[in-house]
Amino acid sequence: MTTKTLDPIPHPAREELELAAVLHALSDPMRLRIVAGLARGDARSCVSFSLPVTKSTCTHHFKVLREAGVIRQRQEGTARLNTLRRDDLDARFPGLLDTILSAAG
Amino acid sequence: MTTKTLDPIPHPAREELELAAVLHALSDPMRLRIVAGLARGDARSCVSFSLPVTKSTCTHHFKVLREAGVIRQRQEGTARLNTLRRDDLDARFPGLLDTILSAAG
Repeated sequence: MTTKTLDPIPHPAREELELAAVLHALSDPMRLRIVAGLARGDARSCVSFSLPVTKSTCTHHFKVLREAGVIRQRQEGTARLNTLRRDDLDARFPGLLDTILSAAG
Repeated sequence: MTTKTLDPIPHPAREELELAAVLHALSDPMRLRIVAGLARGDARSCVSFSLPVTKSTCTHHFKVLREAGVIRQRQEGTARLNTLRRDDLDARFPGLLDTILSAAG
């Protein structure tokens, strides 16, 4: 049996996504690496990326990506798992994510 | 007769353009409007855009775009004219500019 609860982690709705905010979220080398990593696979935790930054900086980067609507975060036990909102991004800004991921190499 | 002078306005070379810096330069609604305007036409001055910002803010936006390599600025008399570096952007990041301009509407 599942219990329905309010989402404790706020996310903008698809129709609320703004191009400038998405571009800002992607305008950082570490965040580009995070998004490229998420684009290749399943939900991943912050630490699994082994970025050369502190844990708090990593947490900050994920927060920027979530608030811009680029990723979705969900809590599973003590872990916060992250997935790319590819469907929402592709619907609002066709081709943008793939073009940027290609440009990021 | 023309006199060759050092360019008083510094620009990054094509091979120096960085994706994160370009995305940052484009991550602002006013700068997106500037770039969309330049994409439609010839060299234009800052004031010709009639943006709802002060002249110094407008100047700042053009500086951010120039330093990221998105636009080229040249001095003509008292006017500073701006052009989009479409060839350089398309060479380094294929499809990026057009995708963002489409998404910007």
